[in-house]
Amino acid sequence: MKATSVFLKSLGFTGPSVLINETQARENIRAMTAKAKSAGAVFRPHFKTHQSAHVGRWFAEEGVTGITVSSVRMAEYFARHGWNDITIAFLLNPLQWPQIEKLTVLLDQSGGSLGITIDSPEAAESIARHPMLPLKVWIKIDTGYGRTGIPWDNLRTLHTIAEALQPHHSMVGLLTHAGNTYAAESLDEISTIWRQTRERLMGTAHQLGNSKLLTSVGDTPACRSVESLSGVSEIRPGNFVFFDLMQWSKGICETRELAAAAVAPVVGIYPGRNQMVVHGGAVHLSREFIVDPRGNSVFGYLGTLNINSDGTISQKVLTELPVISLSQEHSIIEIPENPASGINDLKLGDLVLIWPVHSCLTCDLSKQYVTTTGEVLSKF
Amino acid sequence: MKATSVFLKSLGFTGPSVLINETQARENIRAMTAKAKSAGAVFRPHFKTHQSAHVGRWFAEEGVTGITVSSVRMAEYFARHGWNDITIAFLLNPLQWPQIEKLTVLLDQSGGSLGITIDSPEAAESIARHPMLPLKVWIKIDTGYGRTGIPWDNLRTLHTIAEALQPHHSMVGLLTHAGNTYAAESLDEISTIWRQTRERLMGTAHQLGNSKLLTSVGDTPACRSVESLSGVSEIRPGNFVFFDLMQWSKGICETRELAAAAVAPVVGIYPGRNQMVVHGGAVHLSREFIVDPRGNSVFGYLGTLNINSDGTISQKVLTELPVISLSQEHSIIEIPENPASGINDLKLGDLVLIWPVHSCLTCDLSKQYVTTTGEVLSKF
Repeated sequence: MKATSVFLKSLGFTGPSVLINETQARENIRAMTAKAKSAGAVFRPHFKTHQSAHVGRWFAEEGVTGITVSSVRMAEYFARHGWNDITIAFLLNPLQWPQIEKLTVLLDQSGGSLGITIDSPEAAESIARHPMLPLKVWIKIDTGYGRTGIPWDNLRTLHTIAEALQPHHSMVGLLTHAGNTYAAESLDEISTIWRQTRERLMGTAHQLGNSKLLTSVGDTPACRSVESLSGVSEIRPGNFVFFDLMQWSKGICETRELAAAAVAPVVGIYPGRNQMVVHGGAVHLSREFIVDPRGNSVFGYLGTLNINSDGTISQKVLTELPVISLSQEHSIIEIPENPASGINDLKLGDLVLIWPVHSCLTCDLSKQYVTTTGEVLSKF
Repeated sequence: MKATSVFLKSLGFTGPSVLINETQARENIRAMTAKAKSAGAVFRPHFKTHQSAHVGRWFAEEGVTGITVSSVRMAEYFARHGWNDITIAFLLNPLQWPQIEKLTVLLDQSGGSLGITIDSPEAAESIARHPMLPLKVWIKIDTGYGRTGIPWDNLRTLHTIAEALQPHHSMVGLLTHAGNTYAAESLDEISTIWRQTRERLMGTAHQLGNSKLLTSVGDTPACRSVESLSGVSEIRPGNFVFFDLMQWSKGICETRELAAAAVAPVVGIYPGRNQMVVHGGAVHLSREFIVDPRGNSVFGYLGTLNINSDGTISQKVLTELPVISLSQEHSIIEIPENPASGINDLKLGDLVLIWPVHSCLTCDLSKQYVTTTGEVLSKF
């Protein structure tokens, strides 16, 4: 752990921040690109996890041309950074028509297009009131997650929407987020949800009698763990670029695939109660937690990251060192009686690496990233 | 609820944001100022809740001259905005000495001073290596919370620290955060913790035999709810400026005292399952939750805020409309069979007001605030 602290200091870290393993993030991107390609699916990654134009370029270098975002403002940010084929996979907010109009025209002029997402006849009517905008209209389908979308078997509403969009607009496709895979207990269950999602989406597209309808799915657990992604037009996973403890704890990714870590300075050492306190709390990690085998909430595990002599990177997750509690700026780390990890060698002002439970939230909370080669990456 | 939506739209809200009831925040500030004064205690409010130079001015107008912050960067921000008497009530991170030195000199030159906080002989030795810096050194005492600080009865370590600081520095006082009041089950329990905190802090100061030692305490539950704050040199509460559902649900504040609310547009309406989805999720509200009487997690309650004909403001917390689930950008609101609140009058693109569970985190996540008179407040 001392070596990791020394390495982090060499990168210039002095306070709470986020470290990105660029080599691994690029590998994660390459792997998912290849998986989409072998399934014949378009790869339209969700950029809400990293929210960074720099990281976006790593995708572009693998041939990605279309992206997914979760808000109009995020779409505007990536449009400013050269992306012109953007789907906002978040339900239309009619209050944002002025921004959507401007963005649609901008993307259209550069040869691209804006995709928007709706799940009601009211939203379709709202679109119909903008007849001249060259929008791609995706219909959000609920294939079982139960958050947003039209239930997959509600054909009546889907027909109503199709009619409401006429004559100037039409559905480009059916889009779903099977977020229920995040709550799955096993890889088998994820696989079952994936099959069901795909069948329901394809079945609905078929029943609508429009052979041109695209199908779009996007969740990291399924996209990473099922054998083949064939059968859908496009995939939109996001979290896989960095992964996190939530994915790792379910066996969806391996330790080496973790590509984003929180960095936190040690500010308090309490041998009397076997605890350490670091600067890095809810406003850095988020309050997302997993439950460990003992039934305790864990807000992160400490880890190590070392550069080997051949330039490769070795990473470890130290489950003996959980973040057991956090407040606005503090995290408390529990230390076992005889730690195997060398944590007791750390002193005030040393730096620890914390693998976050949910990288999307931890990354959202950071103003920028630093890579293992010391490059500073700005973000949205 | 429609009236609240119309009002929020009149203020220019179109997406997730934070509304501040300035009139009430100023009243909350006035009340705490008066309470500190009547107890003969210095009022050094914690600015980590609002993090805004604008809101800071409301404190200055009530006569506040000294403030508390939770990081060196936040201290730098408020120093840039004219504050020169600042305590960083967060343990010293030795990696930040370059910034601390610069800030100390800056504040000293303008007739103020920087207070820093330590809880170990190692940190005291680190300070001793900066003999010429005119720092105010506070010793963090653990009076029972168990997060950071030297246990109140560990006089040996306190003496070691006092010696390590010599000959150029000395303790200015003992500082504690009795954060255990946040977990208290009743106002009586808060009162008991307050008495214990005060006794332990004063007892330790007395036993150290230094009659000039100041005592500083700071937690909203106790500072708001105990009858008198006499017996300590200064108080440092922060949350009270806006309060939140966590304080409200424990009876620490009243509905009218809530002064910060999240604003979120309605993007999905699902009468079939009695739910509504709004744009406003974990990256807006935070994942902090309270547990309702049925044992369910609640991430916020919807509410109303209306301006009366005489200019006063009426607020309601609608416990029939809980946020029962949230993901990165979405919140799901549960609607009862026959809601009393008029929520079923809302349409896509209407705005709801959500009282946050923990205003410190919700405010941290917002890039700016808007007041009920439409003023935009920038922040750290």
